[in-house]
Amino acid sequence: MTTLSPAELYERHRDLLDRARTALDTREYWSPFPESPSKSVYGESAAADGEAAFRALLGKPFPIEVPGATGQVGTERSPYGLDLGVSYPRADPEALLAAAGAALPQWRAVGPQGRAGVAVEILRRINARSFEMAHAVQHTTGQAFVMAFQAGGPHAQDRALEATVQAFTESVRIPGAARWEKPQRGGDPLAMDKTFTVVPRGVALMIGCTTFPTWNGYPGLFASLVTGNPVIVKPHPGAVLPLAISVQVAREVLAEAGIDPNVVTLAVEEPGDEIAKTLATDPRVRVIDFTGSSEFGNWLELNARQAVVYTEKSGLNTVIVDSTDDYKGMLRNLAFSLSLYSGQMCTTPQNLLVPADGIETDAGHRSPEEFGADLAGALGKLLGDPARAAGTLGAIVNDGVRSRLEEAPSYGTVVRASEPVDDPGNPDATIRTPLVVRLSASDEKVFTSEWFGPISFLVTTASTEDSLRLFRDTVRRHGALTASVYSTEGAVIEAAREAALDAGVHLSENLTGGVFVNQTAAFSDLHGTGANPAATAAYADAAFVTGRFFVLQSRRHA
Amino acid sequence: MTTLSPAELYERHRDLLDRARTALDTREYWSPFPESPSKSVYGESAAADGEAAFRALLGKPFPIEVPGATGQVGTERSPYGLDLGVSYPRADPEALLAAAGAALPQWRAVGPQGRAGVAVEILRRINARSFEMAHAVQHTTGQAFVMAFQAGGPHAQDRALEATVQAFTESVRIPGAARWEKPQRGGDPLAMDKTFTVVPRGVALMIGCTTFPTWNGYPGLFASLVTGNPVIVKPHPGAVLPLAISVQVAREVLAEAGIDPNVVTLAVEEPGDEIAKTLATDPRVRVIDFTGSSEFGNWLELNARQAVVYTEKSGLNTVIVDSTDDYKGMLRNLAFSLSLYSGQMCTTPQNLLVPADGIETDAGHRSPEEFGADLAGALGKLLGDPARAAGTLGAIVNDGVRSRLEEAPSYGTVVRASEPVDDPGNPDATIRTPLVVRLSASDEKVFTSEWFGPISFLVTTASTEDSLRLFRDTVRRHGALTASVYSTEGAVIEAAREAALDAGVHLSENLTGGVFVNQTAAFSDLHGTGANPAATAAYADAAFVTGRFFVLQSRRHA
Repeated sequence: MTTLSPAELYERHRDLLDRARTALDTREYWSPFPESPSKSVYGESAAADGEAAFRALLGKPFPIEVPGATGQVGTERSPYGLDLGVSYPRADPEALLAAAGAALPQWRAVGPQGRAGVAVEILRRINARSFEMAHAVQHTTGQAFVMAFQAGGPHAQDRALEATVQAFTESVRIPGAARWEKPQRGGDPLAMDKTFTVVPRGVALMIGCTTFPTWNGYPGLFASLVTGNPVIVKPHPGAVLPLAISVQVAREVLAEAGIDPNVVTLAVEEPGDEIAKTLATDPRVRVIDFTGSSEFGNWLELNARQAVVYTEKSGLNTVIVDSTDDYKGMLRNLAFSLSLYSGQMCTTPQNLLVPADGIETDAGHRSPEEFGADLAGALGKLLGDPARAAGTLGAIVNDGVRSRLEEAPSYGTVVRASEPVDDPGNPDATIRTPLVVRLSASDEKVFTSEWFGPISFLVTTASTEDSLRLFRDTVRRHGALTASVYSTEGAVIEAAREAALDAGVHLSENLTGGVFVNQTAAFSDLHGTGANPAATAAYADAAFVTGRFFVLQSRRHA
Repeated sequence: MTTLSPAELYERHRDLLDRARTALDTREYWSPFPESPSKSVYGESAAADGEAAFRALLGKPFPIEVPGATGQVGTERSPYGLDLGVSYPRADPEALLAAAGAALPQWRAVGPQGRAGVAVEILRRINARSFEMAHAVQHTTGQAFVMAFQAGGPHAQDRALEATVQAFTESVRIPGAARWEKPQRGGDPLAMDKTFTVVPRGVALMIGCTTFPTWNGYPGLFASLVTGNPVIVKPHPGAVLPLAISVQVAREVLAEAGIDPNVVTLAVEEPGDEIAKTLATDPRVRVIDFTGSSEFGNWLELNARQAVVYTEKSGLNTVIVDSTDDYKGMLRNLAFSLSLYSGQMCTTPQNLLVPADGIETDAGHRSPEEFGADLAGALGKLLGDPARAAGTLGAIVNDGVRSRLEEAPSYGTVVRASEPVDDPGNPDATIRTPLVVRLSASDEKVFTSEWFGPISFLVTTASTEDSLRLFRDTVRRHGALTASVYSTEGAVIEAAREAALDAGVHLSENLTGGVFVNQTAAFSDLHGTGANPAATAAYADAAFVTGRFFVLQSRRHA
C-alpha cells in the first residue's frame, strides 16, 4: 500500500478542487461523479462486484473500529423485505467525545489544503464503492435501485465535493501569512509579519436521516471535516449502513495519511439510548448538522445552545397553478414529481393551489375538478405498469408514512386514491401510488401540516392572487424547501418571484420537461435557504461553512 | 444638488471597492481615510469648520427625522465638563420597526452593487465631517482629541469600509444569473436559466457602546446595510451624538438616491425605556450587533432567539512576560498600552503574568518585584507631564470606572497607584493614571473578573509554563480580545501560539515599538475571534457578514 500525506493528497486532487471552484462560481452544469450506473463508466464488473460486496456485509458485525464501544447493535430493516442482519458497535458518547477531542489538534495542524486533499480522497474511494452503496441505500431507505445509486451515490458525492470546495475556499480567503508595512513620516515604515491560522469550532455532530442518509448527511460531514472539526456521525437507526460504509472509508483514508482516524467516528445506538440528545447538548460539541423532523430539529435549535446548528426539517412545498401552454408537459412533470420515491422527499410538492375559476391551458379551460381528473389520469399513465411503477416509486420506508396514507382521505375529496403495487421483482416490498385529495382554502388546518410521503392536496383558492397570498403566508409560517409556479402570464410569474422572495423559498417556473421541482443539482442549485422555517441553511453557500471555523492571528515586528 | 442613483454611486466608488477588496485579500497595509488631522490632508479650514459645526449643535434639538417619535430626550454629559445640551427625538419602537419593515422591499430591490455604492457615499460624507465627529466623540467618550479624531473618525471609517467590502463581496459570490446545460444522451441538453437574488434576513438592530460608538458600531451597521437589512441604530445613552451624526448622513444620502431614508433610523431612549430589550426580542428583528457588557451581551444571546446575534463583550486581556532582548522597549510599549484612553478599551491588557523566578532581559535578570517597579517607572516617565499625559489618557468616561479604581487596590500590593492629573487645558475633566496591583496566581477570583478601565494586575505565576496554562485556561473560560507574549525563546513563542489557538485569541509577539496590543488595523488585523467568550464574531471576516442574508433562486427552461 502506497500511502500519501495530506499535502500529497492535496496535490493529487488540486485540479479537481480548482475545477469544482469554477463550477461553483459560474453555477454552470458540472458533475465529477458520473450518475449513470453503466459498465462503460464504472467498469465491466462494477455492478456484480458491488452487489457481492454488499452481500458480504449481511448477517454479521460491520467491520469498523469505534472507540469505547460496548457490544453490538442492529436496528435496520429493508423496506424490500431483505433480511439484513448487520450489526454495529454500540456507541459510548463519552468515549466518542474524548476520542474526537484528542484527534482535534493534529487535524487542526493539517491545515485547509491537507484537509481538502483528504476529503477528496475519501470521496474518490466512496465513489468507487457506488454500487455497493446503492444496495445499502436501497435496502435502508426503500429507494428503487437506480435512484439509490444516483441519489445515494454520485449525486451525494457531488454535494459532498461542493461542501468540501466551499469549506476549503472560504477557509483560505484570508492568506496564511502577510507582511504589513505602514509608512511613517520621516522614518522607516512600521513593519509587521502576520500569521493567520484556521481553527475549528470544536467537535462536530452529524445526525443522519432515514430517507437520504448520504445526500443529506455528506454536506455537513464534509464541511465540518474540511474546516478542521472532528465529526461524530450519528446515523438514523433505520439507515445506518450507508453512513457506516462512508465512515469506514474516511477512517481508512485518514489512517493511511498518518492521521488519527478518530477524526471521523460512527455513533450507533440501541433504541432508547437517545445519544443524539446526549451528544448534541455536550459542551464539547460545537457544530451540529441535522436532517429530519421539525420536532427534533426545533428541539436542537432550542437546546443545543453551545453549538451552531444547521437543520433541514420539513415544510409545505407548494405549486401555484395559474395557466400553461403545455398542459400535457405540466401534468407529466407534476405526476412524476409526486411519484418519485413515493413522495418521500423533503422536496416533493404537497399543496397544489388552483383557482376556483379554473386554469387556461393549450388544451382549453380546465376547472379544478377537471384538472384533478387530468392529474389523476397522468398518474395512472405513469404508474400503469407495475414493474416500471416500482422503479419510480420505490418502497414505503416506514409505518408512519403508511398511517398518514390511511388518514389523509378523510379530510377531503379523493382525487386519486393510493393503491398498492405488486411488483413481481419485489414481492416483499410495500409499494404505494400517490394519494391526491381535494381541499378548499378553508381546510388550512389540514394542509398547513406536513404530510410526509405520497400525499398531496389540491387546494382550491379564490384566485391566483389568493393562491400567491396563501403561498406567501403559509410558507413564511411553516416553511418549504421547494415551490413552483405554472403561468403563461409574465405578471403572474413576476408576482410569484416576489412572493417567493418574501416567503424565503426557491422557485421553479413552468417545469414541463426533464427537470423536476424535487431535484437540485450540486454546484448550481442551492438546496434550502435558511430564509424560512424549513431549514437554517442552504447546500452549500458560504454561510453553510463560515460558522464552522475561526481565523486566529499572530503578529510580530518584521 | 445633483443626485445620483445607487447604481451611479456604485460606478463612482467602484475603484475604491476594488482596491479595498485587494487589501482584504492580501492583508497588506492600506487605509483610504487619512488618520492625520492635518490641514494638508483635510484642508485649511477643516479644523475650525468642524469645531464650529459641533458648537452649532449644542444646546438644541439635533436635526433628524425619526418616524413616530414623541418628544425630545437628552442624556449625554461630557467627561470634559462641557455642557452639551443636545436632545433627540424619543423613539417609539413599534413605529421604528414598522418604518424599517416598510423600507425593506425597496432596499432589497436595489441589489448588492447599489447598496455598496450608497454605503461608500455615506462613508465619504462622514469622512468629510471628521473634525466635527472628533469633538462629538471626545465629549461623549472622554477620548483625548487626537484619539477621538482617529479612532472615532478615519479608523472607524476604515472598519466600516472593510465591513462594506466584505458584505458586498460575499453577497455577489453567487452570480445574479446562470445558464445550466446538462448533456443528454442522444438529444439536446437540458437547459435552464437561473436567477439568484440576495435577500436580507430582516430588520437589523445595532446597539452602540459608550467608549467607541462609531468604531465598534459601524462594522455591524454597514454589514447589515449592504446585505439589504434596514438598520435601527440604538446608541448608548452616554454617546448618542456620534451615531446621530452618522445616521443623519446616511438618511441624507439615501434620500438623495431616491431611497426611503428609513432604511437607517435612530433610536434614542429616556433612561428606563429599555427599548434595546423591546427591539431585540421583536420577531421582526433578525440581526443584532452589540458592543458592551458581558451581562447584556449574554442576555441578548440567550433571549433574542429569533435573531443572529453578533456581540463584542469583555474578557481578560493577558500578557505573558517570559524574557526580552529589549527591556526598555517592552516597558515603554506596555506603559503606553496601559495608559492609552485610561485603559478604557476592550483591548487593554489586564493580566500581566510573570514567573516567580523573574525574567531574563538585556538589562539583566528582573524579579517580579523589580519588573513591577520598572513598569511603574515607565508609566511615570510616560505620564510625567500633565498636558502630555492628558493627551494620552483622555478622561474617565463614567462613575463605574472610578469606583473600580477605588476598589481594586485592596486586593493586592499596589505597584503603581492611580493618580489624578490636573490638565490646565481641561480643568473640569476627570483624568487618572493607570493602577497596577500585584497579585499571586491564587487570587484567581480577582483577576478572572473584568476590571474595565485603567486597572491591571501583575500576577506572579510558578513559571512561564504555568503562565501559559493560566492564560489558556482563563481565556477559554472568560474570554479575551487581545493577548501578547514577550520571550526570546523560540519554544516559548511556539508554545504561546499553540496556547492562543487553544484559547481562541489573537496573539501579539514581542511588541516593543510603535505597534500596540490594543490597536488593530482594518483590512489587515482581525478584531475579536468568536472563538472565546469575549465575542461571537470578528471584524470583519466572511462569517461576520454571511449570516445577514440569504440567496434565493428561481429557475426556468431556457
